[in-house]
Amino acid sequence: MSAFTLSSAELRARSGRKWHEYPDDVLPAWVAEMDFEVAEPIRAVLRGLTDEAAYGYEPSTEYAQLADAFATYMQQRFGWQPATEQVLPIADLVQALFTAVAAFSERGQGVVLQTPIYPPFQVAVRDTHRRIVEHRLIDDGSRYVMDTRSLADVFNADAPVLLLCNPHNPTGRVFERAELEAIAEVAADRQLTVVADEVHADLVYPGRQHIPFASLGPEVAERTVTLQSATKAYNIPGLRCGLMHFGSTALRERFRDLFPDRMLGTVNRFGIDATVVAWRECGQWLEEVMWVLGDNRQRLAAELPGVRCYAPEATYLAWLDCRGLELTESPQRWFLEHAGVAMNEGADFMGPGFARLNFGTSPEILAEILSRVTTAARARGSYLRKVGP
Amino acid sequence: MSAFTLSSAELRARSGRKWHEYPDDVLPAWVAEMDFEVAEPIRAVLRGLTDEAAYGYEPSTEYAQLADAFATYMQQRFGWQPATEQVLPIADLVQALFTAVAAFSERGQGVVLQTPIYPPFQVAVRDTHRRIVEHRLIDDGSRYVMDTRSLADVFNADAPVLLLCNPHNPTGRVFERAELEAIAEVAADRQLTVVADEVHADLVYPGRQHIPFASLGPEVAERTVTLQSATKAYNIPGLRCGLMHFGSTALRERFRDLFPDRMLGTVNRFGIDATVVAWRECGQWLEEVMWVLGDNRQRLAAELPGVRCYAPEATYLAWLDCRGLELTESPQRWFLEHAGVAMNEGADFMGPGFARLNFGTSPEILAEILSRVTTAARARGSYLRKVGP
Repeated sequence: MSAFTLSSAELRARSGRKWHEYPDDVLPAWVAEMDFEVAEPIRAVLRGLTDEAAYGYEPSTEYAQLADAFATYMQQRFGWQPATEQVLPIADLVQALFTAVAAFSERGQGVVLQTPIYPPFQVAVRDTHRRIVEHRLIDDGSRYVMDTRSLADVFNADAPVLLLCNPHNPTGRVFERAELEAIAEVAADRQLTVVADEVHADLVYPGRQHIPFASLGPEVAERTVTLQSATKAYNIPGLRCGLMHFGSTALRERFRDLFPDRMLGTVNRFGIDATVVAWRECGQWLEEVMWVLGDNRQRLAAELPGVRCYAPEATYLAWLDCRGLELTESPQRWFLEHAGVAMNEGADFMGPGFARLNFGTSPEILAEILSRVTTAARARGSYLRKVGP
Repeated sequence: MSAFTLSSAELRARSGRKWHEYPDDVLPAWVAEMDFEVAEPIRAVLRGLTDEAAYGYEPSTEYAQLADAFATYMQQRFGWQPATEQVLPIADLVQALFTAVAAFSERGQGVVLQTPIYPPFQVAVRDTHRRIVEHRLIDDGSRYVMDTRSLADVFNADAPVLLLCNPHNPTGRVFERAELEAIAEVAADRQLTVVADEVHADLVYPGRQHIPFASLGPEVAERTVTLQSATKAYNIPGLRCGLMHFGSTALRERFRDLFPDRMLGTVNRFGIDATVVAWRECGQWLEEVMWVLGDNRQRLAAELPGVRCYAPEATYLAWLDCRGLELTESPQRWFLEHAGVAMNEGADFMGPGFARLNFGTSPEILAEILSRVTTAARARGSYLRKVGP
């Protein structure tokens, strides 16, 4: 076991939602956090804060430091240079989705989602009284791809906003330049706002390359709001720090008209300091994490009988097509009951018959998860051959 | 020096805004935080979090614990029983002010403020494109009181919301039942929403009693949104945790229609855990703080020549009427330059000619602040007698 992987006993002994939502005999492979110790520089900076115990108002430089660390990191990793003055810190990217939908569309209008999609994308549309307009990713036999031919038509439905998710959750796709450019073209034609959640950008496997949507060109950037955070790659979602980057002053001012400064809250110092350190000092840790995740990903492809799963191009999330099991209940519920593994329910992602499996864990725990899932799937196979579904 | 007071050298050695905004030869008596160590139970719970270093998603019980701790605390201290299911955690009370204004009034409408008032009250009205309608507190020669006779007329100006601040910042008034009942009567007549910021409720000096506005009766509660937080009394504003309590389901639903769940962000775990512990375990610490503040408050009344100041009934903030100094510049700027003391500028509170002094510090530091202020004021007095203003 590597220095930062934890045993299931160690994980259960800690507080937090992932390992305590289900009974102790269930292995959790649901909510998107990893079973790894966070990097030592993050631990150290937060310990420093609680040693000092100065819980008054944070230094006035906090927000500027966050914007600087973000811009430098994006430049170094993706060759994209965001403008620090267009950065707005925000508690989490779900808040960013909700507020972006509210700011860039009107009640009753459509918002395009590329489904299946992470449930908060849907809630952000519904709960703000907008309509979900579906642009469904297509299974091409080896991965899920964007149907670029149908893209323009989707926006006929009075839909001024696209919530792009790239890398894509739950399919793990890293969209290619041609796919992104197809979006950019439609966006320019129809004067759309593109809200690009790119939180999984750091978790891309060899052979693929993340392209920030705003980096496609100045005209594209002008209509793009980028959402970014260190929470996924550096495993600190509980610290509640993310940011929005507005590709133009016009976009930011439109947003600010509805959500002036301080209406959306102030991001806490623990979250900001951890994020700054993550982006500045934890690259080596992330590289080691990617080795573990890469190995996990290989095993995944090999070991799921009766379930179709394309190796994700990014993320530690696998999108399992369980329809071959011919279940009469949801895959999530079935695997929970028959394998003692808690995944996320596909229907919540607008993908009924599917489940999302989190493989961001130690090889040992993943082996146990896959063993349980395989055993259950095999038994289901035998049952189907004997008596039918 | 008591166990929790800190020297100016110790305070300057820590990070944070209060002691670093001005040069080292300036004593900071501005932003509303105290120069005291936070209570040990708070320090311990936060150290526990950084020792564990589990920064994944927080336990699902966090919000419920906060609501429970709040309801119990309000019941014990003020005999008011809030409904836990009507509690909404929020990053800070300024966010609560902004969102309440947006939810309970329309663009162009008026929002009543009892001036002078804490600047974010004004910004919350202006930046959401509403109009400030002033209901000015009156100097009755011994304190600032509500002009209950003029109250009803104020609401003729198409103003459906009152932002009540009680105890009042900056005057330190704890409004009496008759004053609050006058508001309640007008609110019922005019179908107003009252947003009651009661964050200083714990910092009331002997002889006065804080009455939660929502506790006046069920009809009053139905139109009241109460804002509360442990940040002022327990000196943890940097942890970013407050809450809103809706006095009725109708109020909450109206708010939720504009601001659905997750649009306003998720409060971080450090803030929630610290607040829960503050409300449950730190009463003794607060009692000791109140002794220090009570002594400080006595000195204040005695030692400010040329400046009028009524002893506040609550808060560690003194509202200084500096008009007797006949300054040609703002009192804030003048005291900064001539006394090396940084206060808050009265004009920012809609009280030009005034300054707000923070006396939440050790007796030693306060003595130095008052000595500097007194010396400067005396020199100004001599100057005026010689050459006029």
